[in-house]
Amino acid sequence: RQLLAAHLHAIDAEAFLVTALPNVRYLTGFTGSNAVLLLTPSRAILFTDPRYTLQSSQETTCTVRISKGPLLKAVASAISRHQLRSIAFERQQIPYHAYEFLHDKLPPRARFVPTDLYIESLRMVKSPAEIDLIRRAVLTNSQAFDAALRQFKQGMAEAELAAEIDFQMRRLGAESPSFDTIVASGSRAALPHAHPTSNPIQPNQLLLIDMGATQQGYASDMTRTLFLGRSSRLWKQRYQAVLEAQLAAIGSIRHGVHAHSVDAAARNVLATHKLDSAFTHSTGHGLGLEIHEPPRIGKKEKRRLLAGMVVTVEPGIYLEGEGGIRIEDTVLVTEKGCEILTPTTKKLTQI
Amino acid sequence: RQLLAAHLHAIDAEAFLVTALPNVRYLTGFTGSNAVLLLTPSRAILFTDPRYTLQSSQETTCTVRISKGPLLKAVASAISRHQLRSIAFERQQIPYHAYEFLHDKLPPRARFVPTDLYIESLRMVKSPAEIDLIRRAVLTNSQAFDAALRQFKQGMAEAELAAEIDFQMRRLGAESPSFDTIVASGSRAALPHAHPTSNPIQPNQLLLIDMGATQQGYASDMTRTLFLGRSSRLWKQRYQAVLEAQLAAIGSIRHGVHAHSVDAAARNVLATHKLDSAFTHSTGHGLGLEIHEPPRIGKKEKRRLLAGMVVTVEPGIYLEGEGGIRIEDTVLVTEKGCEILTPTTKKLTQI
Repeated sequence: RQLLAAHLHAIDAEAFLVTALPNVRYLTGFTGSNAVLLLTPSRAILFTDPRYTLQSSQETTCTVRISKGPLLKAVASAISRHQLRSIAFERQQIPYHAYEFLHDKLPPRARFVPTDLYIESLRMVKSPAEIDLIRRAVLTNSQAFDAALRQFKQGMAEAELAAEIDFQMRRLGAESPSFDTIVASGSRAALPHAHPTSNPIQPNQLLLIDMGATQQGYASDMTRTLFLGRSSRLWKQRYQAVLEAQLAAIGSIRHGVHAHSVDAAARNVLATHKLDSAFTHSTGHGLGLEIHEPPRIGKKEKRRLLAGMVVTVEPGIYLEGEGGIRIEDTVLVTEKGCEILTPTTKKLTQI
Repeated sequence: RQLLAAHLHAIDAEAFLVTALPNVRYLTGFTGSNAVLLLTPSRAILFTDPRYTLQSSQETTCTVRISKGPLLKAVASAISRHQLRSIAFERQQIPYHAYEFLHDKLPPRARFVPTDLYIESLRMVKSPAEIDLIRRAVLTNSQAFDAALRQFKQGMAEAELAAEIDFQMRRLGAESPSFDTIVASGSRAALPHAHPTSNPIQPNQLLLIDMGATQQGYASDMTRTLFLGRSSRLWKQRYQAVLEAQLAAIGSIRHGVHAHSVDAAARNVLATHKLDSAFTHSTGHGLGLEIHEPPRIGKKEKRRLLAGMVVTVEPGIYLEGEGGIRIEDTVLVTEKGCEILTPTTKKLTQI
């Protein structure tokens, strides 16, 4: 709250209008699906609808305004009533029509001040309590992975295994998968974001599983690539190359390192194996209340990683028609290096 | 496509920039999580990133532009290259910063033309193929409900039953729940959007289940409220009142009816039981590629329902500290009335 007051002062704004729901949750604890938060140095007003009358009173200590119509109308009235003259808003996180609506209703001489991912930048470095929640989500994730694989049978469809994974996550206390679970076998593993199909998983091929378990709002993210039955020498070499790249990226992480150099660490290893052109995405991303949050660990990301950030490290290679490999952990950046939160083995596993 | 050309002509635009992902999917079939579509009467250009190179070529017949950096940069170049002078955009569906970015890069004399939920308005009336997909999603939903209840045991936690429901959906072919499954027992049923807890479900109380199964992208939505063991006379009366309201709303649906009068049909019945003040949301909403789509069936909705629309009908009552009841079906509007797609019984069920 103090940080926010300082920030408002720095950008010469009297109030901050928060329209991104994860930011609202971060600042207030409110978990409903419809909310806007208006912050001033002295007040926090949460706008939501009557479905959440009881829930908002249980979850937050803010002043709550329940609004039967569009929330923005109530927000516009509050801006007028409190005679706010400069209101910071989330440039990335407000739909154009909402901006337009509020802008048209601004009292004379009042103005909007654009901000860029300010609350998101606060969210990047996690508190100890948040880190505990992420640890729990990551652990649930790994336990669900193990439990689901124990249920794996020859001839199971990709979608059945995905269902089993989701069931195990939920059984272990996750409120939902953090994203649609990916189970891709054989050449379908060449699609980085494959949807599981009703195709039976065939023996002697790759099996890529990418999953996350959200627990008390916090996400986790893990990918493992397994071999069903015997794998060829070529695929074993490729697996080792991706693993080497992943470990190199992890090895480069510590407080203060540039995100792009972590990306480069993975990319350079794949280049020595002539596999860099098959690595078509960035090396990782932050996670927390959202499955994708800043910082991105990409080629051009100039930001430095800081102790307390939680990021994924997930290099992968994708070969059309043949298959793909991705290996992903969730890691916590520390002063001296990082802690790999994901306990699941990365040794080449044949099942 | 012809409709779109006519619409562009009517609003005096040469092109349409589609930024809402469900709209992109509707128009192109592309299911990826990062895309923008630029439509002209003669071309459709889909912008996405390298993760989707293969998938986009499999799913769509558009011209695909793969962009390693921000998609909007590539969009801005295309606008210049094709010398487009008036580009319609989705006022509700573009973030302010994206609008601002593109606007700053517009070639001289080019301009943006705001549109309001135009593709969404096309999506309201479903094609026979879409109706088949929704039928399937609704059927999966009901089958999963039955299968999960067969696994219900005394002392099960809300979250365990929710996990079982999600598992059954997935087992039956759904790719994901359409939203976080709600299992709320006892007084927690007074929260219209309760998160399932690890509390054991106690005997002799209410059990509210709200669930949806997404299959091939199309959502379904159903709520049932059950009684565990014996229910009091008072709650039985309340259940009958909500059911009467739901049936009255369904009975009022036919091609051409105003959405607000369907809402009124439910609300008036609850008023005769002095329960209208406990009905704190609107009677229903459209569904399809999204779980909430226009039309809304609310007090002030002036739109008429048309044959081929698929909507939910879900009146409910919420009594703080006591509990709540909601009964919800997915229905298809027809020329002469409507077809209730949801096959699950609404007779008061005690388990």
